[in-house]
Amino acid sequence: MANIKIKLEYDGSRYSGWQIQQNTQHTVQQILEDCLSEINKAPVRVTGAGRTDAGVHALNQAANFWLDVEIPEERIPMAINRLLPDDIICKQARIMSDEFHAQFDAQGKKYRYRFINRGYSSVFVRNFVYNIKEPLKLGKMEQAALYIEGEHDFASFMASGSDIEDTARTIHQIELINKEPEIWIEITGNGFLYKMVRIIMGTLFEIGSGKKKVDEISAIINAKDRKKAGFTAPAKGLTLVEVYY
Amino acid sequence: MANIKIKLEYDGSRYSGWQIQQNTQHTVQQILEDCLSEINKAPVRVTGAGRTDAGVHALNQAANFWLDVEIPEERIPMAINRLLPDDIICKQARIMSDEFHAQFDAQGKKYRYRFINRGYSSVFVRNFVYNIKEPLKLGKMEQAALYIEGEHDFASFMASGSDIEDTARTIHQIELINKEPEIWIEITGNGFLYKMVRIIMGTLFEIGSGKKKVDEISAIINAKDRKKAGFTAPAKGLTLVEVYY
Repeated sequence: MANIKIKLEYDGSRYSGWQIQQNTQHTVQQILEDCLSEINKAPVRVTGAGRTDAGVHALNQAANFWLDVEIPEERIPMAINRLLPDDIICKQARIMSDEFHAQFDAQGKKYRYRFINRGYSSVFVRNFVYNIKEPLKLGKMEQAALYIEGEHDFASFMASGSDIEDTARTIHQIELINKEPEIWIEITGNGFLYKMVRIIMGTLFEIGSGKKKVDEISAIINAKDRKKAGFTAPAKGLTLVEVYY
Repeated sequence: MANIKIKLEYDGSRYSGWQIQQNTQHTVQQILEDCLSEINKAPVRVTGAGRTDAGVHALNQAANFWLDVEIPEERIPMAINRLLPDDIICKQARIMSDEFHAQFDAQGKKYRYRFINRGYSSVFVRNFVYNIKEPLKLGKMEQAALYIEGEHDFASFMASGSDIEDTARTIHQIELINKEPEIWIEITGNGFLYKMVRIIMGTLFEIGSGKKKVDEISAIINAKDRKKAGFTAPAKGLTLVEVYY
């Protein structure tokens, strides 16, 4: 028995998110468990670093699982990819100590929100970017992002449907990157609440469009009230970029 | 009546190429003519700068057509995009002089061939890149590209099925660009024969993998024989980037 950590890239467009659900077979975790169980010739349970919502993508999602069969670690990605659909790829596999746990050992995560701010999207990235037609003031969004960095109670930025009680998190950095015609907002933190990244993005977009002001951000954080923050930006613009251990 | 020039971006994956065909409705030109005829309330014929093959993409394909209805040029893209599927976008429209002809006036074109040289592709660009698993020596490919630049008879790089007699063309530049994890080969020239870009790419790939040698290139060009050149690289890696007027 070996404890294997893998890195996964996936296009979330066709999936009901990462997490296995009762009412659909179409989750990334389910597809992966089916494929690993076939390799292992016995059921395999996969632990992800965290869930991604329906329609959210991943560049380097991390997960671990136990294999009974012996395969050299460098040959594991090929063995998995042979069975996976073409919108999920295993990029790397490492044999870990028995103690490694992809969820509990995760120290932080980086997400990227991709958008195109003009009258039309781009056909090449249309499933991975949010097309905002309303002109945005990026400078205002950068100013607002500075207020969000640091340790805060992010209750205002958590969607209902979560039973988490401790809503304090630390955002290490929020960075706007020009990737013509796309703009990327990258956000790194020690952990994220339910839909927190998408609500932060929606709030930044409302600041960029002038619907909210930069100096409202502190009040929004302090209110600890979801209704004070902006809209939940669409899932398709969001990608989990990295999980830190 | 106004003579309109447009710039188009399209994902060629679902299409049987640019050019209208008898046996399928699924060409970019057909979709566009249907949409423009609806706006014009009378049949519209579209002239493209050139054909793109089945599965080939475009970032800035150019075309022109005549409209009876009067629409300010800045509102034309929106009017068209409202009717187009989400894998074709009109990015720009300009009213031209009556003489302008998208095909005859084209002075040159730039194409981009996108590939990923590792054991696995990337889910985000999987429809737009060719995944070559065999390790390539890019330096050899760059050396070979220098021999292809300039004015040559490119008969060795033309697929059968074309009735063109003058097979001399000028390649202004071939450039390799590192766009981790992708590599792009951009090629600019005054014109291209049938499948010429894809045959040049296939030849460069065979040089990169060691199947052909750099110093064979001149002999391949001089042979004026399709069988001497390399394979035809897959359509999905190719994008028409720009048409020069």
